[in-house]
Amino acid sequence: MAAYKLLLLPGDGIGPEIMAEAEKLIAFLSAAGVASFETEKGLVGGSAYDAHGQAISESDMALAQSADAVLLAAVGGPKWDGVPYDVRPEAGLLRLRKDLGLFANLRPAICYPALVDASSLKPELVDGLDIMIVRELTGGVYFGEPKEITDLGNGQKRGVDTQVYETYEIERIARIAFELARKRSNKVTSSEKANVMKSGLLWREVVTALHAREYADVQLEHMLADALGMQLVRRPKQFDVIVTDNLFGDLLSDVASMLTGSLGMLPSASLGGEDAATGKRKALYEPCHGSAPDIAGKALANPIAMIGSLVMALRYSFGLIPAADAIDKAIADVLAAGLRTADIAGPTDKPVSTSQMGDAIVAEL
Amino acid sequence: MAAYKLLLLPGDGIGPEIMAEAEKLIAFLSAAGVASFETEKGLVGGSAYDAHGQAISESDMALAQSADAVLLAAVGGPKWDGVPYDVRPEAGLLRLRKDLGLFANLRPAICYPALVDASSLKPELVDGLDIMIVRELTGGVYFGEPKEITDLGNGQKRGVDTQVYETYEIERIARIAFELARKRSNKVTSSEKANVMKSGLLWREVVTALHAREYADVQLEHMLADALGMQLVRRPKQFDVIVTDNLFGDLLSDVASMLTGSLGMLPSASLGGEDAATGKRKALYEPCHGSAPDIAGKALANPIAMIGSLVMALRYSFGLIPAADAIDKAIADVLAAGLRTADIAGPTDKPVSTSQMGDAIVAEL
Ligand SMILES: CC(C)[C@H](C(=O)O)[C@@H](O)C(=O)O
Ligand SMILES: CC(C)[C@H](C(=O)O)[C@@H](O)C(=O)O
Repeated sequence: MAAYKLLLLPGDGIGPEIMAEAEKLIAFLSAAGVASFETEKGLVGGSAYDAHGQAISESDMALAQSADAVLLAAVGGPKWDGVPYDVRPEAGLLRLRKDLGLFANLRPAICYPALVDASSLKPELVDGLDIMIVRELTGGVYFGEPKEITDLGNGQKRGVDTQVYETYEIERIARIAFELARKRSNKVTSSEKANVMKSGLLWREVVTALHAREYADVQLEHMLADALGMQLVRRPKQFDVIVTDNLFGDLLSDVASMLTGSLGMLPSASLGGEDAATGKRKALYEPCHGSAPDIAGKALANPIAMIGSLVMALRYSFGLIPAADAIDKAIADVLAAGLRTADIAGPTDKPVSTSQMGDAIVAEL
Repeated sequence: MAAYKLLLLPGDGIGPEIMAEAEKLIAFLSAAGVASFETEKGLVGGSAYDAHGQAISESDMALAQSADAVLLAAVGGPKWDGVPYDVRPEAGLLRLRKDLGLFANLRPAICYPALVDASSLKPELVDGLDIMIVRELTGGVYFGEPKEITDLGNGQKRGVDTQVYETYEIERIARIAFELARKRSNKVTSSEKANVMKSGLLWREVVTALHAREYADVQLEHMLADALGMQLVRRPKQFDVIVTDNLFGDLLSDVASMLTGSLGMLPSASLGGEDAATGKRKALYEPCHGSAPDIAGKALANPIAMIGSLVMALRYSFGLIPAADAIDKAIADVLAAGLRTADIAGPTDKPVSTSQMGDAIVAEL
């Protein structure tokens, strides 16, 4: 039986509650003999800061480096609003992304049939929606230098961030998008602001050249990021795969996931490059939603995005496709049976708790 | 009778068609003795490039500098996709903004009662929606240096853009937002990515300090730009005034205007600082929508955003409030009477042309 090392990082807010449900699934998969999972637990974000003054410790970083995959729940919350910039909760997540080289962030925006009415959009606009946003995750304005605040005297300061992209960074993320599109509806929409940004101009140039060279069979369109924001609201089903930079990806993927009405349901995968020797990719899986400090500790959180993140790990890191399909089906079945956590409950539904939802999915298996 | 100098820049695509309708209103106001308008016409964008190889000429820039207000329709289109970066259509618009010092872009996102059903959102979420987005327009990543593509050899290039904000730039735009909020519902939402950007951190610090010092009576909240994108889709009516930087403002205002279902109806104002001697502000007024090259020349365009831009000029630049109110009422009346251009027509409406809509508004006056 194959053995995999998983690092679990519950993080902050509702993180520990939803991670507990993913752990039930991991235990089930081990007991069922699907694979043997060796799990370790670490701290990230505010909880790491509270424990040792860093957003992630060196030893947890070492565990992340040696794990076959990392499962992260969520980081941040108002409790840490005042902590120094370098050790704020987000710094832990950003360091994981950067140090593990997780340049490709895959964010599906899917509208679950059972939840069409939970969307703020008219049902016919989102019914059947299935977009894959491919966000560049280790470059752009998130990491470019200089990134600083300078005191200019006279009460004036200057804040600077730098957006940088090099050809190879654009090429490797575009490649991921084209490959995914081939397995889906064969269409890629690449987005930037080439009309005002030089990095956007380079982005468009590199994507266009790669497309002509290797992916001419895939339909490619370019759309300015502001126009894409509009079109997501207007007619979201026109999209298949969207590829964009770190900052636009942050914003546009949040808009897209909110469209679905299923924010508590959406997982994401962050993948590194293939190791030349082993062919393996480093990987981190996390829900699209945040740490929701307002509902933390109340058993209200929806664990499905977290469980879905485990499913993505089974699929992309471990190749355990039948197990992944089985869990996906179990999730669809409990939803079809009417189970709802508070976030997706309609006016007439009686919501279940976080652990009731997790238990029901395990039971369905 | 007061006399005002207006520079009209029809630009590209549907620009000339919708500007023609605004001109009917200007002629009407002059004839009615409301004020005397001296209008000049210039070229901007692709049409300027076609005429003389620049996105705006020095002589048209001089006219813009000496005008009391500039009315611009729209720039750009696929025809000019291949022109050099420095003379692309957008460069004309960006130069106008920068050289006239138009740092404050006011973009109302209003859902017209007659058009509630045109929104892709459920009617109850947008009915009565009235947001004012205050976008910083002369700073940030649009204008920061370095902004360049460098050839690194070996087929590799590096694209760089720089996001820069100084204290005074943040303070003056926040001041506009707080002042507007006082005349509206007294709430300001300030948005950035302070969790990953140093310029965002400075933005939050400066807005917070200005608020404490001078605007403690206004309700202030900070919301990360990605979360704001989500909340715009989820519950847009929670917002009153939103203040944000140039790039986030570009994207978020487009999302917000698309929510209303009234994109063809939304004007915008771009204002400079008060001249110390005259107390006047430089100003440019333009629709929120683009040049829509696909429908150009077909008499399909909705002229209301353009006419609304003239109304904003009457209001903000000339203080002709009764005339502004009268035109706003005429627009509401023709809509209430069922007149629709194609973009806002329902399945059972028989759409009118661009000029029929303009004529109807003049007739209503
Ligand atoms: C928490 C934050 C640093 C992060 C980001 O901006 O990337 C989050 O918004 C996300 O999208 O994963
Ligand atoms: C045309 C373009 C340069 C412009 C911008 O990005 O500012 C437009 O999108 C806008 O919002 O006015």
